[in-house]
Amino acid sequence: MQVTRASDYAIRVMIHLASVPAGERQSLAGLARATGAPESFLAKILQSLSRAELIVSRRGKAGGFELLALGRQSSMREVIEAIEGPVLLNLCLHSSENCDQKQHCLPHRAWEKAQQAMLAVLDTTMIADMAAQDTQRPVVIELPDADAKMTGS
Amino acid sequence: MQVTRASDYAIRVMIHLASVPAGERQSLAGLARATGAPESFLAKILQSLSRAELIVSRRGKAGGFELLALGRQSSMREVIEAIEGPVLLNLCLHSSENCDQKQHCLPHRAWEKAQQAMLAVLDTTMIADMAAQDTQRPVVIELPDADAKMTGS
Repeated sequence: MQVTRASDYAIRVMIHLASVPAGERQSLAGLARATGAPESFLAKILQSLSRAELIVSRRGKAGGFELLALGRQSSMREVIEAIEGPVLLNLCLHSSENCDQKQHCLPHRAWEKAQQAMLAVLDTTMIADMAAQDTQRPVVIELPDADAKMTGS
Repeated sequence: MQVTRASDYAIRVMIHLASVPAGERQSLAGLARATGAPESFLAKILQSLSRAELIVSRRGKAGGFELLALGRQSSMREVIEAIEGPVLLNLCLHSSENCDQKQHCLPHRAWEKAQQAMLAVLDTTMIADMAAQDTQRPVVIELPDADAKMTGS
C-alpha cells in the first residue's frame, strides 16, 4: 500500500521543474542532483512523464527537460498516475474489475470511501503550489563544467 | 499503492467470523468456502491474524477458528496491519525513516494529510459493524459431512 520510489522521485522532479523560470531547461544530470535520484532510474521516470505529456525533452545545445502546460497545472495524483497508472487502494475499485459481490460488499464501500478521502488530498495538492512554497530547500545552480555545486538557500 | 490480496481476504474472513455466534468455531475449509480464498493461502492469513491476537485456533473435535475480544473490536486498519504491518502511503512516513528533508518537504506533508484522510476511514470502519450489516451475502451452512452446501439468504 505504498507509493513507489519512482513516483516519489517523479513528484520531486516535477516540483523542481516547476520552480525554475518557464523555458529554462534542465539536464538529466542536474535533475538527478536536485532530486537525489540515480540518473539511469530518473531517465525512465522522465520517459514516463514525457509520455504523459507533463514534460518534454528538447534536443540540441540548449536542450533539456522542461514542463509542458499540462505539467504546470498538474496535481500530485496526476504525476503518480503518469508513473503507476490509476491509483487504486484495492484492485476491486477498478471499473473493469468484474466482482459479483461489488453491489453488497461492505469492504468495497469502505475502500471506495478511503480512496476518495486520499484522492481528495492528492487531487488538490498542486505541483505548482509546492514549487512556489518550496523556498527552504537547497537551490541547485548548474554550472557548465564539472565544478557544478549546491548552494544552500 | 494497493492493498494485498492477503489483506483483502483477511478482512473477509474477519467479517465472516464476526457474523457467526460467539463461541462457534469455523474450520479452515469452511472459511475458504465463505471467502473464496484458496485454503493454503488462507492458512497463512489465519496464522497472521492469530499472531496479532485477533483470532484463535482451538484444537480438538469441536476445534476451529474463532474471534478473540481484540478481533471483535477491530477496525479494517487493524486487520490490514496484522497482515502487512503499518499502513504507510510513503516509506518517508515511517517514524524511523531518517530523511533530512522531512522538516521542509512539501510532498511529505501532502502524504501525511492523504494518509490521515485514508486512515480516518479505515480506523472507523469496524469489522463488527460490517458483520452486522452483512445481511445480503450468501450464508454458509457447514454440515458435518461432505454434503456441505451453500444456501442463499
